[in-house]
Amino acid sequence: FMDLALEEAAAARDAGEVPIGSVLVMAGEVVASARNRVEELQDASAHAEMLCMRAAAASHGGWRLNADAAGDPCPSTLYVTVEPCPMCYAALHGFRVERLVYGAPNDRLGAV
Amino acid sequence: FMDLALEEAAAARDAGEVPIGSVLVMAGEVVASARNRVEELQDASAHAEMLCMRAAAASHGGWRLNADAAGDPCPSTLYVTVEPCPMCYAALHGFRVERLVYGAPNDRLGAV
Repeated sequence: FMDLALEEAAAARDAGEVPIGSVLVMAGEVVASARNRVEELQDASAHAEMLCMRAAAASHGGWRLNADAAGDPCPSTLYVTVEPCPMCYAALHGFRVERLVYGAPNDRLGAV
Repeated sequence: FMDLALEEAAAARDAGEVPIGSVLVMAGEVVASARNRVEELQDASAHAEMLCMRAAAASHGGWRLNADAAGDPCPSTLYVTVEPCPMCYAALHGFRVERLVYGAPNDRLGAV
């Protein structure tokens, strides 16, 4: 899954964005992936993790990313190439993502 | 401006949402206002403050809410009826909002 996140990060880099990618996984399946798009969307909240969780919620049919369609527990894991910032780290809790895997630490903005 | 935020909060309440409203002001003018829409949009990040800053960036023509169209300093103020959560508080920094006015403290989720 981290390979896919790295592909997203490369796509962000190629687009002139801060090169970060993210993948949301539930029950071993990719629910959504996203890359940083702050400049493209002119949206300071359009970090890879945030877009990934929003896309996952839309795809999943609900904002609680810790249960399946029947409401049974189904924990999700967010993969991200770089340690999340405080906004995204807090959003993990908002979307009820229980597990985070990140590639590289972020000494400047990391919140974990 | 807080009156307008309270109107947004009332609209959120009437829609069955957590009743919070927010207004973004630059140079004494309302740039955007928003209410909490987590359930409507099925998006855990759709807090009033976050939607307000995203709408303001779209309206303002850029994600940096501390400068005018010419790039000259133009600080913004976010009004919100309730103390922001950690996600939204961190997003204030992301969008470069320098001033926050909130109505009521939030002992459970407040981050200020």
